[in-house]
Amino acid sequence: MSEKGITKRSENYSQWYLDVIERAELAENSSVKGCMVIKPYGYAIWENIQKELDRRIKESGHSNAYFPLFIPKSFLSKEAEHVKGFAKECAVVTHYRLKESEDGKGVVVDEDAKLEDELIVRPTSETIMYDTFSRWISSWRDLPLKINQWANIVRWEKRTRPFLRTTEFLWQEGHTVFPTDEESKKEVMDMLKMYTDFAREYLAMETISGKKSESEKFAGAVDTYGVEAMMQDGKGLQFGTSHDLGQDVAKAFNIMYTDKDGGRKYPWQNSWGVSTRMMGALVMSHSDDNGLVLPPNIAPMKVVVIPIFTDAEKESVLTVCNRIKDELGEMAYLDDRDFVSPGYKFNEWEKKGVPIRLELGPRDISSNSCVLVRRDTLEKINCPMDNIKSVTLDLLNEIQDNLLAKSKELLISKTHNVTTYEEFKEAIKGGKGFIKASWCGNPKCEEAIKSETKATTRCLTEDGVGVSGKCIYCNKESTDKWTFAISY
Amino acid sequence: MSEKGITKRSENYSQWYLDVIERAELAENSSVKGCMVIKPYGYAIWENIQKELDRRIKESGHSNAYFPLFIPKSFLSKEAEHVKGFAKECAVVTHYRLKESEDGKGVVVDEDAKLEDELIVRPTSETIMYDTFSRWISSWRDLPLKINQWANIVRWEKRTRPFLRTTEFLWQEGHTVFPTDEESKKEVMDMLKMYTDFAREYLAMETISGKKSESEKFAGAVDTYGVEAMMQDGKGLQFGTSHDLGQDVAKAFNIMYTDKDGGRKYPWQNSWGVSTRMMGALVMSHSDDNGLVLPPNIAPMKVVVIPIFTDAEKESVLTVCNRIKDELGEMAYLDDRDFVSPGYKFNEWEKKGVPIRLELGPRDISSNSCVLVRRDTLEKINCPMDNIKSVTLDLLNEIQDNLLAKSKELLISKTHNVTTYEEFKEAIKGGKGFIKASWCGNPKCEEAIKSETKATTRCLTEDGVGVSGKCIYCNKESTDKWTFAISY
Repeated sequence: MSEKGITKRSENYSQWYLDVIERAELAENSSVKGCMVIKPYGYAIWENIQKELDRRIKESGHSNAYFPLFIPKSFLSKEAEHVKGFAKECAVVTHYRLKESEDGKGVVVDEDAKLEDELIVRPTSETIMYDTFSRWISSWRDLPLKINQWANIVRWEKRTRPFLRTTEFLWQEGHTVFPTDEESKKEVMDMLKMYTDFAREYLAMETISGKKSESEKFAGAVDTYGVEAMMQDGKGLQFGTSHDLGQDVAKAFNIMYTDKDGGRKYPWQNSWGVSTRMMGALVMSHSDDNGLVLPPNIAPMKVVVIPIFTDAEKESVLTVCNRIKDELGEMAYLDDRDFVSPGYKFNEWEKKGVPIRLELGPRDISSNSCVLVRRDTLEKINCPMDNIKSVTLDLLNEIQDNLLAKSKELLISKTHNVTTYEEFKEAIKGGKGFIKASWCGNPKCEEAIKSETKATTRCLTEDGVGVSGKCIYCNKESTDKWTFAISY
Repeated sequence: MSEKGITKRSENYSQWYLDVIERAELAENSSVKGCMVIKPYGYAIWENIQKELDRRIKESGHSNAYFPLFIPKSFLSKEAEHVKGFAKECAVVTHYRLKESEDGKGVVVDEDAKLEDELIVRPTSETIMYDTFSRWISSWRDLPLKINQWANIVRWEKRTRPFLRTTEFLWQEGHTVFPTDEESKKEVMDMLKMYTDFAREYLAMETISGKKSESEKFAGAVDTYGVEAMMQDGKGLQFGTSHDLGQDVAKAFNIMYTDKDGGRKYPWQNSWGVSTRMMGALVMSHSDDNGLVLPPNIAPMKVVVIPIFTDAEKESVLTVCNRIKDELGEMAYLDDRDFVSPGYKFNEWEKKGVPIRLELGPRDISSNSCVLVRRDTLEKINCPMDNIKSVTLDLLNEIQDNLLAKSKELLISKTHNVTTYEEFKEAIKGGKGFIKASWCGNPKCEEAIKSETKATTRCLTEDGVGVSGKCIYCNKESTDKWTFAISY
């Protein structure tokens, strides 16, 4: 364990993840099993993610709307494939009233208030949205329909981990309807690209993306595409998906439109989403044994100014600190608490991953300089006070670039091309990672590889399409090279 | 019914409200009883409300966070008063799994997956938050704690109306904790003022505010303060509340802190919130028999540009329209659809309450002018094209001011000072409104007035405090003049 009270990655990677979240005050378990409380600092990061994604979603012509939290149980029977994949583990509302208990000391469920058709707390909104879309769409003039929703989602999970897998989580779900298959498929890929661009430009995370296998795709989709990130422990983490739904959901929910030629037609649909799971990926991508490391673009505060003073020096130091804070503007936060020591503050903000710490004491004032400490490298830099803003901005860019470069490096160093099952298993043993291997497409080979190595197909990246070879498991002809990994 | 397909206010005010919402495409009923779908245009207005309120909430030092959707049933027994007022009508989750039905055609609730302690879908978050706060707060250093949450809320309602009363609604709930009663009470009033300022400055709505009576206050609060708006039909509408919770909830949830003097103390708490109900108030405040009327500050699009052309003129007219749109920037929307007529567009945007319609055809181009139509007065204004942006901005300000002035006028014209119960009843008969009357404070008089006239105490405004008189019902001494109304 480090001096920050954080387990070292080399000792216990999963405990390290939990420690980072706790020490950075991102989230904590609540009194409701499997549900977390997202604390102010964690929520501020999520708000930044939301703000930038929402901007991109709107810029590409989508409108936000809001659909009910509840889904009538009967809706889940409409789309047989969807039911199979999803409907099992979810929160079921059966009653709508409580009453005082007979001893008057508490409340009990009122058995007289039982629902005829039970309501499911949305595990995803396809059914409730498409029921509505069937009333919104009647003519070609109503297409394309491009809707997005920010909402809370509930899937009953047995084993939960903050952000990565929680019973309730927050997400955005895009649902769009097009007159042609081509336009819908383009949207599927455009949104996939939006996610990978966002991850790269904002979260400083290099990712891979591509089509999922039949067994890994979304229940009811024609095709699912996933965005996969590589964690420091060599495991893959899927944090976004984009689904080509074809015309099946339109048929299930009777969504039809009258085309220009007068014909009644089924449109083509897709859906796509990312969730607070992205927060887990962000935490694991950059953080170190001292705690959270945040890319500047997504950090709630980019620079924390920490004054160092004795009682006599307090006023003069704070005056200069306030001037610096004003000069740096919104990106800076001045920690002027006088009941904790500078060392305590260094420690706290380091654990919280603030990209730059700016230290300023009387000696710095007399030399008209200050000390900048980079969170990514922990490097200390003496900086003249005169051009503090431009130096800080440059440094923030450098940190953002450095984190992305490290993420790329990690991805590359943990990607292995193998041609035999022996090599595949050795790669798993030697630190996991993304393993590119020929697979014939037979679910039996996929299943056998999974049960023997725990690795699953993550996706078929573009550079693997059409790369022929022999299936590493059955040795039959394989037309594509798939990416495998042990995943979160 | 008007030519817009909207029932006239004079014919049937409640149907008019429903028609305005439908024709403006703000919201619609969903397949889940009592739950609405907030449509893109309605949601864009809600997003604007959120954005501005969120800015004010953060500016005053509050942080957003997120707490679980579910509340363990046992939590509702902790705070006896709270239970009495709230816990009855709510969605109860009793099971966490579905299974395929025996005929394989649908899903049924899996009786093997029954929860031991049922979960309630939050009807408000006091209990789940304060359970958490008891772990967050241990020292005076942790205070004040100022938390806000944007969330969905469920209260099982028998009779629902879009925005005004729905089973699920969206809201913000602030929950703050202070070391002293004075600071907490100041917060209660500050947030009440935030709501009235916001209503005035953004929604162009003049409101009254003040303390609620014992029978109308929030269950478990020491005092509740409400913001009340006056609707065109003379009914009051409460759209925001701020609660002084005293120390009772701290005691119920064991929230304690160690003070500077080393003593263990209970802090003082309050909570405050506004919801999508505000949308209902907004709709009813300004709209007319032609549909929605939106104040410019909150309108998703402030100016809609409508080109008028024959096929031959299309290109040249659209060129100028695009130039105008670029000049006006984000506030303008160009409706360049070529499959509906200009008249159809006029009608559509009028129903949607866009503050200014800008019409432009070949004749306007040759005279280098355009026509502006104000939504609030329906007045047409010829405007030279050269200074279109400044004219438009001035006109938007004028519309905003005019709507606020009309709202004030309505409030004043519908406020009646009465001294006898006869006058009180006459005021109710003669068009309702806010009725200021002396009331002794006895809940029996309040109850009798309510059952005889349907009017309830709305609040005790500042100008009514200490205004002594005789209770209009029992004729006993009364120390304050209360505001009554029939309310939504």
